[in-house]
This record gives sequence, structure tokens and C-alpha cells, in this order.
Amino acid sequence: MNAKPEQTVPAAHIKHWDSVTDVAILGFGIAGACAALEAARGGAAVTIFEAAGGSGGASALSGGEMYVGGSGGTDIQQRNGFTDSTEDFAAYLTLAGGPAPDQAKIALYAREAVDHFNWIRAQGVPYKGTFLPGKIIEPETDDTLIWSGSEEAWPFSATAKPAPRGHTIQSPGWGGGRKLMDILEARVREAGVQVETSARGRALVADDGEIVGMIIRQNGKELAVRAHRGVIIATGGFCMNTEMVRRHAPEALRCSHPLGTIDDGSGIIMGQAAGARAIHMNEFFVTCPWYPPESLVKGIFINEAGQRFINEDCYHGRVMSAAVAQPGTRVFLLCDNDIFARPMELANVELAAVGESWGEVEAELGFATGTLSTVVEQYNAHAAKGEDPVWHKAAKWLKPLTTAPFAALAFNPSESYFSYFTLGGLETLPTGEVLNLGGDPIPGLYAAGRATCGLPRWGRGYSSGMSLGDSSFFGRMAGRSAGERGI
Amino acid sequence: MNAKPEQTVPAAHIKHWDSVTDVAILGFGIAGACAALEAARGGAAVTIFEAAGGSGGASALSGGEMYVGGSGGTDIQQRNGFTDSTEDFAAYLTLAGGPAPDQAKIALYAREAVDHFNWIRAQGVPYKGTFLPGKIIEPETDDTLIWSGSEEAWPFSATAKPAPRGHTIQSPGWGGGRKLMDILEARVREAGVQVETSARGRALVADDGEIVGMIIRQNGKELAVRAHRGVIIATGGFCMNTEMVRRHAPEALRCSHPLGTIDDGSGIIMGQAAGARAIHMNEFFVTCPWYPPESLVKGIFINEAGQRFINEDCYHGRVMSAAVAQPGTRVFLLCDNDIFARPMELANVELAAVGESWGEVEAELGFATGTLSTVVEQYNAHAAKGEDPVWHKAAKWLKPLTTAPFAALAFNPSESYFSYFTLGGLETLPTGEVLNLGGDPIPGLYAAGRATCGLPRWGRGYSSGMSLGDSSFFGRMAGRSAGERGI
Repeated sequence: MNAKPEQTVPAAHIKHWDSVTDVAILGFGIAGACAALEAARGGAAVTIFEAAGGSGGASALSGGEMYVGGSGGTDIQQRNGFTDSTEDFAAYLTLAGGPAPDQAKIALYAREAVDHFNWIRAQGVPYKGTFLPGKIIEPETDDTLIWSGSEEAWPFSATAKPAPRGHTIQSPGWGGGRKLMDILEARVREAGVQVETSARGRALVADDGEIVGMIIRQNGKELAVRAHRGVIIATGGFCMNTEMVRRHAPEALRCSHPLGTIDDGSGIIMGQAAGARAIHMNEFFVTCPWYPPESLVKGIFINEAGQRFINEDCYHGRVMSAAVAQPGTRVFLLCDNDIFARPMELANVELAAVGESWGEVEAELGFATGTLSTVVEQYNAHAAKGEDPVWHKAAKWLKPLTTAPFAALAFNPSESYFSYFTLGGLETLPTGEVLNLGGDPIPGLYAAGRATCGLPRWGRGYSSGMSLGDSSFFGRMAGRSAGERGI
Repeated sequence: MNAKPEQTVPAAHIKHWDSVTDVAILGFGIAGACAALEAARGGAAVTIFEAAGGSGGASALSGGEMYVGGSGGTDIQQRNGFTDSTEDFAAYLTLAGGPAPDQAKIALYAREAVDHFNWIRAQGVPYKGTFLPGKIIEPETDDTLIWSGSEEAWPFSATAKPAPRGHTIQSPGWGGGRKLMDILEARVREAGVQVETSARGRALVADDGEIVGMIIRQNGKELAVRAHRGVIIATGGFCMNTEMVRRHAPEALRCSHPLGTIDDGSGIIMGQAAGARAIHMNEFFVTCPWYPPESLVKGIFINEAGQRFINEDCYHGRVMSAAVAQPGTRVFLLCDNDIFARPMELANVELAAVGESWGEVEAELGFATGTLSTVVEQYNAHAAKGEDPVWHKAAKWLKPLTTAPFAALAFNPSESYFSYFTLGGLETLPTGEVLNLGGDPIPGLYAAGRATCGLPRWGRGYSSGMSLGDSSFFGRMAGRSAGERGI
């Protein structure tokens, strides 16, 4: 029938259902996996349809960190000396949600994240339980707990008592997300979930406003799938769909690396075709691994106007989201000899200027005389007193940049390694129900993960582990809601 | 039947058509008026349904300026010594379109804007034909031609040869938009268009994917309207719908004054319910009348970090769009005694500090010692040489701010007069055809004006007259397309 995501297929057009299940899930990243577990264990027949050849999606590209806390803290937080109240966790998530946070999701997640984390462990996901201090992106070791956001940085530190909340799977080096997904896939298969791979969602099937199934394309054939209780969209965001990014988040196209696998937005479009609304479609996560080494955090970023624009001790992605919004094409990280080190090769940044004085660096970069050097002088004068009156970098990262030689590292979003993914998507209730254009749930339709607009919805507020936390938790909620529907 | 914008009504549900026309137009602002004229003069029976008690919409709140040029210039541009090539006009519109300009619309508009302007005059809209120099928002006089954008300001001046393109209706003082709409309404009525007021669009009626009519609410009753050739959505943007703004453009809610009449987004939602896609929904126009007097343009804006953030000689709305994006809650306009003047009372700005030196102003504003005063010193040193190396303000607006006393005017988007309207909306072809989620036209559905995402689609690129120009021109295109459909 040549189904298209942008059009629901009327149930009356389906002559024959090629397969029948209770809950049909599109996408086998972490949201789909967790949805499947809840629905299957609740007694529903569940089928996952994954467009790729196997499980994982963008979740498998991640570091396998989960952003959890509250309720006094996980046992791992507590064991390492950190308490974390639900109120502080919620306050942090609210500030991280930007100008329009989802208070209902925040309240639920802040209250239940510790239980959720224990559920994740009960699936067999291992955590060493150790704390790794410092400013890092992901552990190079197999340690667990890290500062994975802006908790200790202004204004977050002034809003919520800081606690490290990044809980990393026990797995040496980066990229624990693949291991996390392998473990969850094993549980999914044990739970009796049917898994269809190389099976792309093509369109939802609707019967008088209710979603009753979908059309899948597999092995060159279109198959009609009846889902008695509901369909769950867990297809991820749209960063790999350049035209869709251009329509909604064109600033992201300045960045060099979309971070996804398929992530073509087709799930969002299928939802919209069923009457759903998509929100905050302009927002995106972006980062560049500009630290480690953490000594660089003692440097200062300036834009092409020679201005600082953020406290450099906040989350790397918050710094880089601000960097992408600066006028001009590059930003510069200024270092002195005490703190200088080359960032990871991956970052692909350029040593743009060196000099025996800041005036020399200024001249080499082509800045007007006195612009850059004045900024450094003022920063140094305040840093010597342990102060950063304008941008509020915490005292432990303040150090006058006075030891020659001096250097400027150039970060260009289109040439350095700036990876991004989209944060806008379908609007859902905490239950996973997808809302229509009028704000009412669409019967039979659920969604989770980056096909939705969830807890992470503001590029400037992202923290590592927030998307996995949101996707796994609200994936479970969607699975439970769909699995229990109409029983 | 209690129709809702978020759901199209199947034609099969309509037992009786309360009225029948060829082209049904929702909204009697300038887009609806121009659409009606083209359709009716082409021979179609046309009905306009307007939710308010009379014509006008947000167009009647405007200054009645039209942003037109190209083709060598309008006769008014030429008579006043300005030539304006189609290439320069298109280059300006492209830069003004931001990261994702609509090249097809730009090419057509740049080529045909002079003809379009002559068509507007042929409707009886009077233009005195005179040029009024200077930096103004709208003429206080009845003059015609003004610099109504960022044409002479960097980077626009470096991209396209500048020409003034704001063509203002002959009407003393601000607010010529009402007169413009009165004249167009008279032509609409002469053309035999049926006008229904207090008639709110409730839902589109669809027959197997084709839009064949709509449901109107008037006098407490729902009426089914059959439109043989097409429906045109010309309902304006969504700035008056706070919840919709929160979902798509939450940064706009920092600003004090939504600029609209009804502008509840219902037309956009009706389009989406019919399968249309809405794009760039986060973008909004914003301004504050911070000049006249134009002497203030010689001042410099700084944010709460003491940093300049734009060349102050560009369009007032471009300056204020940048102001709203600054960190903190206020920006300050710094003036010396030579240029100081109170902005219009309307702007509602506060005299935040005065001093005999910039150091005194700095201290009174609570800035760290040396931050603000250094910025002014550097600016002064360059201005004395007629240079602004960082922000590229044109030489004619550069003047060292050295004549005591000194002052800082505070602009707070939520307290001063910051007016805004939304720029995102339905994606349309230059013909006015509305595109579905897959990028194909939806048969029978057309749109124009701020219910669409048109030439003005980037807050930082707006120029006065751009929305009226876009809405009237592409309103005509939509009227022509709908009027001729299926003949």
C-alpha cells in the first residue's frame, strides 16, 4: 500500500493483519527495551520492531550513564558520602528544564528515580559502586558515580544542593551504553518479547481516532500489525534527518556531528500524523569534549568579540551550547603554561595562537589592541582574590592566567568535534500517553525517549545520563500504561 | 457537533451545508483581504470569516508599512535617488531569513515586489512619495519612504547595497495600518466578497485528504461551510495563546506585550490537524521603541556582564531580539550628555544610573570595578577614530561618550514595553499551498500571513513592513491559487 509516516492508515483499509500483539513498540533503544519489559511482565504480548539490524539505537552509542538521585540518595551516592534530597533533585531538574520545564514529569522522576535505578540494577546492570572525583565526561575506568552535570556550578549550585548523580555502568573506558543495551536485550528476550529487526515503522493505523496498530516494512514487504492495547513510539529524535533539522532547529546544522543511528524523526512524524503535537522542536543537545584534562577548566572561554560568555566550570555541553550561540564562527579557550594541555584528539581543536604575553596572543588572533588582554587582566585580578563577579566560576577553578607562555585553543562547531542530537518531540504525559493538538491523550498511542520532549528539553540544561534516565524511566511508564490498557 | 480546531471533521459527517462558496477565507487581516481580492476578481465566489467584529486583525495595529524594492526600485525609491536591484533585495532578504531562509519565496518576492506595490496603490492606498531620512520606527508625518530595517548596518550593509524599502501609507502619525485595512476592506466589499464577522473558524472539513470546507461558529451556532475550490487560513500567529507560546517559543514570555488581536494559533492548529507541518515555531519578532530620538543610536548597549552585544545602528527589533537573548534580566543603554534624551514614554525604560564619570555609573549599577568603564574607554578610543572593530557600527553613529554627566537607561523585557509576535507557522509553497508532513501540498488548503512561516522567520532579521509585505503578496498568491483550483 506504500504507507507513509505522514499519513495514518484507516483500519478499514486493512484487509488482513499480518501479525497480532498486545503492545507494538517501535524502536529498540533503551526506551523501547524498558517499555517492553514492563508491558511483557505485566502479562501483555509484546513485539518490538527495530529499523536497524539489532538493538541499541543511540542508547548504545552513549556512555551508559543514568542521571538519578533524590530520596536521600541512591545507596551508591550515600556510600560515597553524598545525600540528595528529592527537593534538591527536583530543583536541579527544574532549572535544567529551561524556560518551560515539565513539572509533572520532574515531580514523578525526582520521587522515583532511586527506585528506578534499583530496578535497572535488578535487570543485571552492574555498578562498581565507587566514586570518581573530578571534571570528566565519562570514566576511563569502571567506576560508577561522577559529577555529570552542572551541579557544582552557578546558577545550579545556588539553586539546589549539589550531589553527583551520574551513575555509570561498570565497564572499562567509554561507551558503556552498548553493554547496557546488551543486558537489557537479554532481559527483553527472556521476558518473551518478540523482536523483529530490520523492521521499519511506516505508518500508524487508526480507527476513528484510536491507534490500533501500525504498518511495518520488513524484507521489502509492508506488514500490518494489530496492537490490541497500544503502540509505543520509541524511535529516537531527528538529528540524522538534515531537512527536518533545518525546518525546526537550523542552528544545529552549524555543528559537525549528528549523534545518532537512524534517528530520522519518522516516529515523531507518525505521531503528528495521528494528531499529536510536537514541542520545543528547536532545542538540541550539543557538546565538544573540551575537557579532560580538567586543568583546562581553569582556562577561560572567549568569543570572537573577546568576551567571556559562561562560567567554564559548568557541564561541558552547557558551555558548548553557549559557544554555538556566540556571534562569529569560533570561540577560544585561553590557557597559561600552568594549565595548558591538549584536549583529547577527538575534539579536533586548533592551537590558534601562542605568545609570551596576552598582548601577543591578542595580536596573533587578530583582536583589536587591548580587547582580549583587558578581559584576561580583569579575570586575573578577580581570580587572584578567588572571585569571578560576573560569571561566578567556583573558587576551586579560579587561577590567574599569568604564567607564560600563553595559548588560545580554537573551537569551531563546524570543524571541531561538535556532536548534537535533538531534544524536541512529541508531548506526552508522565504515563507515556501522547497528547493531541488539543492536549488530550490519543487513545492507544504512547511514546518515550527522544521521540518525545522529556526531562531534557533545553540544550543549556543538559547533564550526562539525563536522556538515558528519562528514556528508561518514562519508557517503563509507557510500557506499563500500554500493557494495562483496556484490561 | 462541538467541532475543535485539533480535529478535522470528515465530510461524511456533514448532513447539511449551511453555506456554499468557492473560496472560504479564515481571517480578515491583510493576508485574508488580499487573498479575497485575487480570488473574487478571478471569478470565484468568496466568503471571509473573521472571528472579530470587523476587519483588521494585527495588520490594523501595524504602521501600515510595506517592505518592497528590487527591479531597480519602486518609483518612489527612484524619485528619491535610490536604486535597488532585485539581486540586492534578494540578498538582503536571504540574510534576514536567518539560518534557513525560504529561497523560493525570496526569489519570487524580490522579483515581483515592485509590481505588487503598484497593485497595492491601485487599490487606492495613498503614498505621498516623499523620503524621510533618519533612524525612526514609523513616520510621525505622512511621508512615505523610510529606512525600516538593518540595510545600512553591518552585516547587511556588507552583503547587499543598502536602499530604504519601508513604504508607509500616507497617514499622519503612527498606526496607518488601520487606514490601510479600511481601504482594502472597501475594495473587498466592492469585489462582491461576502464578509461574515464574529465568525470563528472551528475546524476544517476533509474528504479523503482533501479540504472541502470548514466549520464556523457564529451567533452561538456551528455552521458548515462548503468551499468548492479551497480554504485559505489567514488567522495570524499565536502570540495571544500563552500556553502555545510556552510550548514552542517560551523565551518570548519574558517580554511584556504580545502584539496581536485574536492571534490564538487556531489556524495553525487547524492546519496541523489536516496534516500540515508547522516550522520554526520558536522564532518571534520582538522590539522596544528605544529610539527615536536617533541621538540614542550613538549610545552603546551593554548586558549585565558589561558587554556590548550588537551594533546599535541596526534595526531596533534586531537590537532588542539580541537584548532578550542576553544573560540576566536587563540591558543598559549608555549615553553621555551630548546624546542623552529620554526615549518615548511608551518604551517605559528606567534611568538606572547617572554619574560624573563612567566609574560612578559603573558603581551605581553594581558592576565590578573596571568592567563597564573599560568597555566604554575602548569604545571611545575606537570611536574617536571612526572605528568599531568588534561590532561594526557605521561611522556616522560613532561618537566618543565623553561629555559628562553620563547615564544608563535600563531595558527590562518584562517591565519595559517589549512587544512581540510569533514568526513560526504552517509551511507553504510560494503559491500558498500548505504542505503536509511529507512535504506535499494538501489539496484544497492554502494559507498566508503569520499563520504561515514566511519571509520573516528569524527574529534577528526582521524589518518593519516585512510581515505586511509577505502577508499581502503571498495572500494574493494563495487567493489566486485557490480561486483557480479545479477550474
